Amino acid sequence: MGSKEENSPKSNQNLVEVQSSVSDEEKALRNGHKGGVLWFTGLPGSGKSTLAVELERYLFDSGYNAFVLDGDNVRGGLNADLGFSPEDRTENIRRVGEVAALMANAGLITIAAFISPYKSDRSQARKASGKCFHEIAVVADLSTCESRDPKGHYKKARSGEIPDFTGVSAPYEQPKTPDLLIDTDAHDIARCVDLLVEYVHENFVLKEG
Amino acid sequence: MGSKEENSPKSNQNLVEVQSSVSDEEKALRNGHKGGVLWFTGLPGSGKSTLAVELERYLFDSGYNAFVLDGDNVRGGLNADLGFSPEDRTENIRRVGEVAALMANAGLITIAAFISPYKSDRSQARKASGKCFHEIAVVADLSTCESRDPKGHYKKARSGEIPDFTGVSAPYEQPKTPDLLIDTDAHDIARCVDLLVEYVHENFVLKEG
Repeated sequence: MGSKEENSPKSNQNLVEVQSSVSDEEKALRNGHKGGVLWFTGLPGSGKSTLAVELERYLFDSGYNAFVLDGDNVRGGLNADLGFSPEDRTENIRRVGEVAALMANAGLITIAAFISPYKSDRSQARKASGKCFHEIAVVADLSTCESRDPKGHYKKARSGEIPDFTGVSAPYEQPKTPDLLIDTDAHDIARCVDLLVEYVHENFVLKEG
Repeated sequence: MGSKEENSPKSNQNLVEVQSSVSDEEKALRNGHKGGVLWFTGLPGSGKSTLAVELERYLFDSGYNAFVLDGDNVRGGLNADLGFSPEDRTENIRRVGEVAALMANAGLITIAAFISPYKSDRSQARKASGKCFHEIAVVADLSTCESRDPKGHYKKARSGEIPDFTGVSAPYEQPKTPDLLIDTDAHDIARCVDLLVEYVHENFVLKEG
């Protein structure tokens, strides 16, 4: 409540002006779609990363702003200080949930592909993003996942070389009511991507008129 | 090197295909500008947040994809577990540096506005983003910053109510060779934003031909 006369000329530059942050609505109108989070959860080998990258490519080619968050770009940087104990997995997913929320706020369709085995961690990720969070269960039989074994991790987990491996020596809590279920046993990649694209159209793309 | 015959029909869906990630170049071509990080560092009250928001507005209105990372959207979420001890400040800036790098990778002009008082922390943030990182020193005399005191924090710091307050009871290491220096004592907001926009044009916008 001090009078203006108390201020020196230097301080009188109104550096604390009206802050005109760009709203979510403005971003959506310009992009043609809302920002949000597609949270892919599933066993190792269920197809999360493959589908995430294929979907990102499709969305980019269709003119959308999309970005994939996964172990490849998070475990070596932001979460390089975390391992695979239950506590570290929880902190891993907590941070990713917050980053996904920021990216959604930036207007991006953020595709987060993480095993995220614990229901409570996924709930916290949903809380960070609010109603723009969509849980996508990427599902395949354990035997299928294990037979794919792209990085040879299942083999190492069975031999004990990798401890705390989800599906083998660490639990996976299946989502009971995901927003979308993608069965990579039943469908090939192209069909799975189609189903995801359909979901994005329904839930992210602004309708005419 | 196993033969295809060893795979069951279920596993033979090539879920591990060529992963066609969208490249930085493709994003830049579509957006008309590169992704990158404008890292604003300076004393409390130097004008970082105000300039960040004004610049974001200008860039958005000019058709660029930009996003502000600052204490407001980070301290309550991603870094809610951190305080203001030297160790926690370092971890705060480490995480923000990694998130800014991810956002730059998503094609955004990411404006990170943080006091970031330690030179070594800013160096680590630069390392996370590589050559798309730009350090912007937002500079004003301590007396000017203190007279602005938008949130009354300097007053509380002087009375001891807020401990470890940068500029009063905690150190600030001025950048010696920033990529750009913005003097908010010498220029009004409009002029500061002009200087920043000029810098963005020089360093982010793709040239014709």
